[in-house]
Amino acid sequence: MVSCFGKSRFAVIAFTLQTIFLILFGVFAEYKYEIGAETRWFYPMFQNVHVMMFIGFGFLMSFLKRYGYFAIGVNFLIAALVLQWHIIFQGLVHLSKEHHWRISINLQSLIAADFTSAAVLISFGAIIGKTSPLQLVIMAILEVMVFVGNEYIAVEIFKATDIGGSMVVHVFGAYFGLAVSRVIYKPFHSGSANEAASYHSDMFSLIGTIFLWLYWPSFNAAIATTEEQQIRAIINTYLSLAACCLVTFAVSSLTDPRGRFNLVHVQNATLAGGVAVGTAANFMIQPWGAVLIGVLAAIISTLGFQYLQEAMDKKFGLHDSCGVNNLHGMPGITAAIIGIIAAAYGNVENYGSELVDVFPALDNSTGMARTAAQQAGFQAATLGVTLLLAIVGGLVTGAFLRWLPGLDAPKEASLFYDGKNFLLNDEETIDSMQNVSHSCLEENGETGQSKI
Amino acid sequence: MVSCFGKSRFAVIAFTLQTIFLILFGVFAEYKYEIGAETRWFYPMFQNVHVMMFIGFGFLMSFLKRYGYFAIGVNFLIAALVLQWHIIFQGLVHLSKEHHWRISINLQSLIAADFTSAAVLISFGAIIGKTSPLQLVIMAILEVMVFVGNEYIAVEIFKATDIGGSMVVHVFGAYFGLAVSRVIYKPFHSGSANEAASYHSDMFSLIGTIFLWLYWPSFNAAIATTEEQQIRAIINTYLSLAACCLVTFAVSSLTDPRGRFNLVHVQNATLAGGVAVGTAANFMIQPWGAVLIGVLAAIISTLGFQYLQEAMDKKFGLHDSCGVNNLHGMPGITAAIIGIIAAAYGNVENYGSELVDVFPALDNSTGMARTAAQQAGFQAATLGVTLLLAIVGGLVTGAFLRWLPGLDAPKEASLFYDGKNFLLNDEETIDSMQNVSHSCLEENGETGQSKI
Amino acid sequence: MVSCFGKSRFAVIAFTLQTIFLILFGVFAEYKYEIGAETRWFYPMFQNVHVMMFIGFGFLMSFLKRYGYFAIGVNFLIAALVLQWHIIFQGLVHLSKEHHWRISINLQSLIAADFTSAAVLISFGAIIGKTSPLQLVIMAILEVMVFVGNEYIAVEIFKATDIGGSMVVHVFGAYFGLAVSRVIYKPFHSGSANEAASYHSDMFSLIGTIFLWLYWPSFNAAIATTEEQQIRAIINTYLSLAACCLVTFAVSSLTDPRGRFNLVHVQNATLAGGVAVGTAANFMIQPWGAVLIGVLAAIISTLGFQYLQEAMDKKFGLHDSCGVNNLHGMPGITAAIIGIIAAAYGNVENYGSELVDVFPALDNSTGMARTAAQQAGFQAATLGVTLLLAIVGGLVTGAFLRWLPGLDAPKEASLFYDGKNFLLNDEETIDSMQNVSHSCLEENGETGQSKI
Repeated sequence: MVSCFGKSRFAVIAFTLQTIFLILFGVFAEYKYEIGAETRWFYPMFQNVHVMMFIGFGFLMSFLKRYGYFAIGVNFLIAALVLQWHIIFQGLVHLSKEHHWRISINLQSLIAADFTSAAVLISFGAIIGKTSPLQLVIMAILEVMVFVGNEYIAVEIFKATDIGGSMVVHVFGAYFGLAVSRVIYKPFHSGSANEAASYHSDMFSLIGTIFLWLYWPSFNAAIATTEEQQIRAIINTYLSLAACCLVTFAVSSLTDPRGRFNLVHVQNATLAGGVAVGTAANFMIQPWGAVLIGVLAAIISTLGFQYLQEAMDKKFGLHDSCGVNNLHGMPGITAAIIGIIAAAYGNVENYGSELVDVFPALDNSTGMARTAAQQAGFQAATLGVTLLLAIVGGLVTGAFLRWLPGLDAPKEASLFYDGKNFLLNDEETIDSMQNVSHSCLEENGETGQSKI
Repeated sequence: MVSCFGKSRFAVIAFTLQTIFLILFGVFAEYKYEIGAETRWFYPMFQNVHVMMFIGFGFLMSFLKRYGYFAIGVNFLIAALVLQWHIIFQGLVHLSKEHHWRISINLQSLIAADFTSAAVLISFGAIIGKTSPLQLVIMAILEVMVFVGNEYIAVEIFKATDIGGSMVVHVFGAYFGLAVSRVIYKPFHSGSANEAASYHSDMFSLIGTIFLWLYWPSFNAAIATTEEQQIRAIINTYLSLAACCLVTFAVSSLTDPRGRFNLVHVQNATLAGGVAVGTAANFMIQPWGAVLIGVLAAIISTLGFQYLQEAMDKKFGLHDSCGVNNLHGMPGITAAIIGIIAAAYGNVENYGSELVDVFPALDNSTGMARTAAQQAGFQAATLGVTLLLAIVGGLVTGAFLRWLPGLDAPKEASLFYDGKNFLLNDEETIDSMQNVSHSCLEENGETGQSKI
Repeated sequence: MVSCFGKSRFAVIAFTLQTIFLILFGVFAEYKYEIGAETRWFYPMFQNVHVMMFIGFGFLMSFLKRYGYFAIGVNFLIAALVLQWHIIFQGLVHLSKEHHWRISINLQSLIAADFTSAAVLISFGAIIGKTSPLQLVIMAILEVMVFVGNEYIAVEIFKATDIGGSMVVHVFGAYFGLAVSRVIYKPFHSGSANEAASYHSDMFSLIGTIFLWLYWPSFNAAIATTEEQQIRAIINTYLSLAACCLVTFAVSSLTDPRGRFNLVHVQNATLAGGVAVGTAANFMIQPWGAVLIGVLAAIISTLGFQYLQEAMDKKFGLHDSCGVNNLHGMPGITAAIIGIIAAAYGNVENYGSELVDVFPALDNSTGMARTAAQQAGFQAATLGVTLLLAIVGGLVTGAFLRWLPGLDAPKEASLFYDGKNFLLNDEETIDSMQNVSHSCLEENGETGQSKI
């Protein structure tokens, strides 16, 4: 069935992982859910987030002319892996005698796993086209573990508030991925002829953009603990994204001598408002605050795509396939800073009876009784720890991906090219690649004769 | 950054508008929402409508072979502009001492803004391919103002009922757009070689069709004031659309000598049942009534696409890019007429205790105590006023778009061509357009040398 | 308007059916719905299922390079027909004096009709490309009638439980379609050059795959009678599908000598976990049970696509256009067997107070008071009857489609080719097909000169 043993390595590892998951589910997992109106409110939002992960991220990354199968297919694969692994690993970390050493499975587990997949898919975006499925599987396994650790520090130790995950998902995912990208960098990663879009691949990408933009209010509101916060998170995200879209088009037209729009900006920077409002989405930032955040995010993100991305590649070897620094990294840091500032204004005058809903650590009755300034400090500490763990975690993970043998990283000719990992019809094979060796030797590292 | 000042005009106007929006949000807007089960019912429906505006309209209009970026991208831009502007303008019109001169922002504001964007996007459909982004921005600003005025008359003065907005959204949007199209008409708008679909552009368009068809029950039911009316609106719309789909295929096959289906009909006329049932969706029209409405809508719309659209273009210079007269105009008028007839049967025998829920103006306790015949009269008056304001508003708006200097209307070679407004790769540039001037002179009106 | 009478046959039949539907709705149908939180939970799930039918199935089947219009368009047509016909026929079968000989229309009717359309669209998948729209209309009318009969036996007589319809929808639809396919089989159905995908047609197909995968938890949970069962069905389906996705990629890479993934597997076998968990989705199968089911489904389905499908075609003349045996048939039988086994463990120890919710026939108070073993027996009987009725019903239906005159079955050159049923631009016409006769004679059976 398999003529080259090395080529079954992906299958062996995938089966092994799935078997481990099966055993751990068997040993530890049990259904444990609460019934009530919360669930009925929750499930439609969960489904919106679910669409964002698989349709949104998958299609958004399908902009490359001959890498759509990988973008959508391997996005699908990695997300399905992360959904299971996060439920298990998150559960193992929180095992307690109180819960009889069992992992509870409920709708909250499912949506938390979806959120975690967002972080991994953002990292994926930094290195798509330059990595094999096997490398991405390894990254996903390791990243989930660091993610859970970081989230534990942020949420349970620092009691930071980050309803839309701008720090723990977006900043974490972006800089984890960029750190990986830096470690695995090879000069031929820059300037590949395959790294280009076609008219229709860009159309497919817009499917991802629009669904992400539409359902982002659900992403930022899903885990709110009160309905007031949920509605506010929906409103703030909606307004921020609307302003972000308009300003992205404006800035984009300024970057072209003939005033034309750049579709890369439309596909990506229009979404930055959802990231930048994420930490403070449930705060009393007021409608004008949400709009202002969207404006800032659009400017930062569009200029990042236009000027910073290429410079980072050329000067620092930081090749960022989808520009995740521009869409998730810098807007996420913006969100964190807004969260710090806004938390400093977390007082009864602004929040009334909702104060302790939004900032539970300010509640006297919990014994924490932080001041608003202290809360702002912990928000800042969360950003710092998130950046630290993302970068260190990404560097270590990148080292595994670079130096672990047999991971089958793509060589120059097969960068950003589906023919490496997917069966293609002859007519779809890019001309310059038709003379590749079908020899099994190609897996034997870079000294092989194969160019794919 | 910008080598031609004129080319930054779009950016300057977009920034100016966004700044004005920001200031008005700052001065007037405040969160004001009610908590309860209504919200939980409401949000999923809002999300369905949201998908219709951005995926539905955007992809539906992407059927042209080289105008997909504009269809989806500028649809996105214009809708994001309208969402903000409608919330503000609608709020300003309703400022009152009772509400402390503040604009309330809640989920109802968001969905109302989405509804308004539907009207503007329908007008957009009449003139897509023949207008610049700047012209569409101007149109959107003006159209929202006329829309709010018309809705005020319909809902608050005439107390008309139009749950699916067939009059105030569809009829208004279609004839506003057609009036604009007539005023900006130039002979080369007809018969452009670029105004054609490709196999895959038509596939993208079907994404829009299907999502519109699927979520239309939510569009017609979202703003119902009781659950009975919501369920009835869902059922009636579902049945009308199912019948409309089947009959559209039947009529379409009759229009071809070889009995083949015309994809233009499939993409568009299948949706007419959602428009035609819109006004009466919450009425007791009975399942058979809904089915009959769908049948009529399919016939009217398909024949309109097949025969009327070209005739209007040739005889009256009414070039209708997406055929909005066939999908929104005539089916909307049908809906209005059905609403008039059905309102005349608005009595206790047919509606029982629901009578005053469906027709609040028939309630004695409100002091209005209209008869059913009077209500029918006000429904008719609403159709008349809507047509009047749409056409007059469209003519005036069209005059601005035609004669205001510097709006950069596309010339013949760049009609229906994305290269005018979006950066394209060389390979995507249509051959006949490769010799266009990159000179800044091209913006100086039709005497310039540029053909784009 | 119509130059060839025979070419209006589709329209005549479609109009006749729609007229009959209209009359039957008029005579029998009335609104009858219950108000309450159930509805609010129900509608978003209904919309997810609705998306699966029209976007999911439609786009999934659009993988053929020149059959996308038919896949999406005729899927749309047939589903819209089935929605109406199922509401009517199901209602007629259940007419009773108790309900005043009226058919009740409510949200439950709509979702039941959507479920039925799933069965018909699965059958459609077996014969797509080899049948005319008229043949599919005939099949839909007949299949709904057999479907309703089978469901009546399964649900009302045998009191089987099959929440996700793995038996009554998936097994039924698959083997009904395969039986039709066998009867209408002609040797040229195998090996057509048109039966191939292109890069972008496969991208469109992935839209269908991902939406089906995402919303499948709603499909399996929608008709649950208690919230506990609904949540459990969501969790089990989510876990099964996640495991199924990962294992499909693993098995797929094993089937290629170079370890590449086969997009056909990614598009289809990733979904088999949703089918295989369908019957037992609301049971206490435990999270590990759901994961194990997903693993098994992936293996069965991927191997089916890789090895069995071609063998069935070559050896038995069982040409299965979309591989419904692999996605729906075998995984559906797997689901049924799991259901039989799991039902045998239906006791108070495993289910507690939920036992009679999940297995109403085990309730003493209903007078049935079955044992778990008896329930398992009735589950097995349901599988048997479903297979029997599907195959017999399909054979009879296939005989109508093959021998009824004037149904315009495609000849060799127009297999899997949109130009037969849709107007195409000249440039889209496949070269080898440009010399087809436009004569009306072509409809006169296989002796005509036309090749299309």
